[in-house]
Amino acid sequence: MVESAVVVGTGLIGTSIALALHQRGVDVALSDRDPAALRLACDLGAGRPLAQEQTEPADVAVVAVPPGAVPAVLRDAQRRGLARVYTDVASVKSSVVRRVAELGCDLTSYVPGHPMGGRERQGPGAARADLFLGRSWALCPAAGTDPAAVKTVTLLAELCGADPLVVDEAAHDRAVALVSHAPHAVSAAVAASLLDGDATALALAGQGVRDMTRIAGGDVGLWREILGHNAGPVAAVLERVAADLAAAAAALRSGDPGVVEDLLERGRAGHARVPGKRGAGPTPDDAVLSVVIPDEPGALGRLFAAAAEAGVNVEDVRIDHSPGLPLGVAQLSVVPEARDRLARALTEGGWSVHR
Amino acid sequence: MVESAVVVGTGLIGTSIALALHQRGVDVALSDRDPAALRLACDLGAGRPLAQEQTEPADVAVVAVPPGAVPAVLRDAQRRGLARVYTDVASVKSSVVRRVAELGCDLTSYVPGHPMGGRERQGPGAARADLFLGRSWALCPAAGTDPAAVKTVTLLAELCGADPLVVDEAAHDRAVALVSHAPHAVSAAVAASLLDGDATALALAGQGVRDMTRIAGGDVGLWREILGHNAGPVAAVLERVAADLAAAAAALRSGDPGVVEDLLERGRAGHARVPGKRGAGPTPDDAVLSVVIPDEPGALGRLFAAAAEAGVNVEDVRIDHSPGLPLGVAQLSVVPEARDRLARALTEGGWSVHR
Repeated sequence: MVESAVVVGTGLIGTSIALALHQRGVDVALSDRDPAALRLACDLGAGRPLAQEQTEPADVAVVAVPPGAVPAVLRDAQRRGLARVYTDVASVKSSVVRRVAELGCDLTSYVPGHPMGGRERQGPGAARADLFLGRSWALCPAAGTDPAAVKTVTLLAELCGADPLVVDEAAHDRAVALVSHAPHAVSAAVAASLLDGDATALALAGQGVRDMTRIAGGDVGLWREILGHNAGPVAAVLERVAADLAAAAAALRSGDPGVVEDLLERGRAGHARVPGKRGAGPTPDDAVLSVVIPDEPGALGRLFAAAAEAGVNVEDVRIDHSPGLPLGVAQLSVVPEARDRLARALTEGGWSVHR
Repeated sequence: MVESAVVVGTGLIGTSIALALHQRGVDVALSDRDPAALRLACDLGAGRPLAQEQTEPADVAVVAVPPGAVPAVLRDAQRRGLARVYTDVASVKSSVVRRVAELGCDLTSYVPGHPMGGRERQGPGAARADLFLGRSWALCPAAGTDPAAVKTVTLLAELCGADPLVVDEAAHDRAVALVSHAPHAVSAAVAASLLDGDATALALAGQGVRDMTRIAGGDVGLWREILGHNAGPVAAVLERVAADLAAAAAALRSGDPGVVEDLLERGRAGHARVPGKRGAGPTPDDAVLSVVIPDEPGALGRLFAAAAEAGVNVEDVRIDHSPGLPLGVAQLSVVPEARDRLARALTEGGWSVHR
């Protein structure tokens, strides 16, 4: 049961967890060394301030501070007896767990954790109760971890809408180096290369480079710390990527198309392994309809009403606006079997439909 | 005036241009060496098949074939006298223009062009009339190009909703190497690195690596050709990125945080230079509402109907689905002044609203 929780650290992650728990009826006590951050989190409805004199330990305490601060904060929380079970949210595990052990923390009640949610923005103001909805939440219990503690933290992750995934801490660190930490450094390198471009070059930038550089906008201090704490695994991935790019550059200079083609082929194969937003790859093309919509109040409402009248559930929608033109395009995702029916119904209703 | 046009090559780009021109009332004749592609483009309403015996030259002909095929196709089009003015859409210019000159094409009526629009999907079936809406469209006239021809192709770009931008061909090639071609190779290298990960590692993949690897899903043959045609400028960018990544890896191994921090700082600065989707950066957070929606027919329709009843125009919407949970989250973008009103109306209507 998770009926009460303490969240230490009301930044983006801590406040988002607190918001989710609070919405599910959990009694949440909050603390942060920054009084303004704590006040904002409380005002947002994430919980109440942790009382100085705690009477009863909570079911679980979440240490939601940067990786380097986790060991000391966890030790202090355990000394105060804030909870029966403890977890953290640091995106690196081996170095954190090693230091936790060195500080003499109780390891039986501590379940190292890492929810896979984030945003470019930081702080409680950016928090969202749905930040972890449908995301994986890694748990890295050790041999000596109390199974009941693992059960509690599993429940905590589920209360936040996440998908708990038990994984060895070293495997976790290698995995996040591959799918998160090294890509962050690569995004930074691509973004840094843009400093060489003039205004004309940047005017030619499209969605591709926007996507490639989005995560480079993240917090420098936090990411320096994350990369440093996971240095070995991240360096290994960066070395492979750098070698691939250096080889491609050399092949381009010497006119050897085979090396470039091999990189592009491996890239396509790797791209196919990335799970889609819903864990099932990208929406198949045969399930998307493009509908031209006038940019006026109620247009989207009328469109969805027409879809509902046709008995078709729109599973996803993306709007492409057309700067300078009074229209946009809604891309509706539906189950493939329903696409033709929806297209017919919308066309009969006067909508301009494209497949 | 652009009242008539010929589009040679009915792939994604050619068909999209033809659709846009046709929608604006231009008489569009199409040709493609693949009869199925030509038929599909015509069926989509992109225009009519080019007659074998052309009587009158069109105002403009668009050579919309891969870079390596442009020179010969342009020469043949000029020999047939298909149009008074010619342009192409190849994403590399110097090597194409050099070969065009070698083939003895008329350079006064040829305006090298490059619309900055694209998709991962290829072929006429993926074409969209709005593919170039709000995008830059580079024009690279030479000293000897007829100014009237430049005017015609400028008008062509504007009819497609794009923003024409005159730029020297060498500067164009360096620019697209920086903002498009090199990022594509980097995306491929990141995606290729994922081949080293097991299923658990991929399960921890989030939006960051999805964005980083999206363009790696593009057509291998086309991109090998593009990179090869712009080899020098692309190699120069890849060498810089590879050097940055190798230096970061070495610094991580030796525990030198300054090098990593410098890369992250430069990445943030470069990220800030990338223009946003609508040319004005990301939607401000104070204009977004998150609303929990049940995953059932008509839910989105009811949501939009409620917004319309409140008199609020929803400008943009993104749906985050929650795998395994019977709900999703709709992120509604509205003008900041309307956000509180919409939140109140939806809350009163029983919706779970988050700011």
